[in-house]
Amino acid sequence: MNPAKITVLAPGLIGGSVALAATRAFPKAKITIWTRRAESLPSIQATLPHAEAGTDLSLVSGSDLVVLGAPPSALGTLTLSLLPFLSSTTLVTDVSSIKESVEKSVASILQGKARWIGSHPMAGSEESGIRAARPDLFQKAPVILTPTSSTTAETLRDATSFWQALGGRVLSMTPADHDQQVARISHLPHFIATTLVLAAGSDSLSLAGSGYRDTTRVAAGPSSLWAEILIGNQSQVLASLKNFRTSLESLTSALEKGEAGALTKILDDAAKIRRTLPTS
Amino acid sequence: MNPAKITVLAPGLIGGSVALAATRAFPKAKITIWTRRAESLPSIQATLPHAEAGTDLSLVSGSDLVVLGAPPSALGTLTLSLLPFLSSTTLVTDVSSIKESVEKSVASILQGKARWIGSHPMAGSEESGIRAARPDLFQKAPVILTPTSSTTAETLRDATSFWQALGGRVLSMTPADHDQQVARISHLPHFIATTLVLAAGSDSLSLAGSGYRDTTRVAAGPSSLWAEILIGNQSQVLASLKNFRTSLESLTSALEKGEAGALTKILDDAAKIRRTLPTS
Repeated sequence: MNPAKITVLAPGLIGGSVALAATRAFPKAKITIWTRRAESLPSIQATLPHAEAGTDLSLVSGSDLVVLGAPPSALGTLTLSLLPFLSSTTLVTDVSSIKESVEKSVASILQGKARWIGSHPMAGSEESGIRAARPDLFQKAPVILTPTSSTTAETLRDATSFWQALGGRVLSMTPADHDQQVARISHLPHFIATTLVLAAGSDSLSLAGSGYRDTTRVAAGPSSLWAEILIGNQSQVLASLKNFRTSLESLTSALEKGEAGALTKILDDAAKIRRTLPTS
Repeated sequence: MNPAKITVLAPGLIGGSVALAATRAFPKAKITIWTRRAESLPSIQATLPHAEAGTDLSLVSGSDLVVLGAPPSALGTLTLSLLPFLSSTTLVTDVSSIKESVEKSVASILQGKARWIGSHPMAGSEESGIRAARPDLFQKAPVILTPTSSTTAETLRDATSFWQALGGRVLSMTPADHDQQVARISHLPHFIATTLVLAAGSDSLSLAGSGYRDTTRVAAGPSSLWAEILIGNQSQVLASLKNFRTSLESLTSALEKGEAGALTKILDDAAKIRRTLPTS
């Protein structure tokens, strides 16, 4: 797709990075930013000096593409208030880390009013807010689209081409499959990194090397957003935690027995899986 | 200290990086490398073209500083075979991740024969072997020295000045304190990163973003060395795992109850601890 007008609503790190990356990918497009809070306008204008930014939702009018940057719990209300400014050809998507609940709250509102598809760019950092936004955030990042039986092939194609233009590696799956797989590969790591920080405590932080630093990096992320994500994907995160506890028992048991061979074998199984991951 | 001859024995990633960093820090010093295996000589010579490398322990003769790069389990035997080539002024140290057991196996052998102090540079990566060595590996890295009641002030001062010259941030503590604190800040994170890789499995790796990538990076490390480290510090690692399980129960319980406020509070406690860590 080659959008003439792109609007990003409530941009934080991800929405801001979408706007920055889109400015590069679509140099002729008009980029518009909406924020609920007037006090956010200075940092939006500092990050995106060429965008039009404001607090009035009528800014959305005439957009070919609308990207919802708000947290999952805010998307239903925000989408409702957008309706007067959408047309049936407007492509609307989001950037949330959970998809089933977002699909439930957004899809029915937009049915027949706009072209909706959920997106989850698997990119980010422990930072938050638009000042942490980066135009290259989506380079080679997995971007998961979650079409349903109501999604047309054209909508899926347009959303795919948009994220590819931003540098993403696009995959698509159902919202339910998304939530199950992302629980394992993103929500569980966040949960465990947090647990690790609490267990290691603060007394030995002066000894922390790159191992601790990397293993726990995500735990510095925004707490209330992550609480919303974890609770929003509660059953799948709890299921992945069950797997985690099973693996923890088996590793702990090998360590308790002091069996070097058995422990090496388990460490090696994990190392083999981890080494299949292409280096960024 | 300003050593005229530095010998590194059995260099892998860490020992090789010591040799590279020492080449820069002490441009007039002679750097000598000993390896048990002749087949390692080509990669040693490729990494350290200006060093003298060989398989004969007599290479060690006349060294002001000897750095033992071998794994902890090999240090006792290696140290014994070194004795003919040491003098009472030679400073001998190691780079192992565990200190109490190394102290037991090495200190008594060197008593009166050389100046011994244990070192643990908290640097590394998931890579291993001398080809992964880097001259800047110790820049700003914590380096823990583990003096005991037998260590002279001069030995501690010389070891401190050596590691500082390589860029390290030197701390000192007893071997027992080292093993307790490093269990929390390094061995536990390795153990948990491994568990996480096994629990997340390999089916969803194509979705892995920077969160999974960083959280699990260390799990790609050398398995047999890590089995040796974890078993060598078994009681302290098991104690830190007990703390981990307590934190895991409390976080899991907040998630099960779906209490956003309680979960946010716990995530925020961890985020606050993690944010106190200076950025690299």
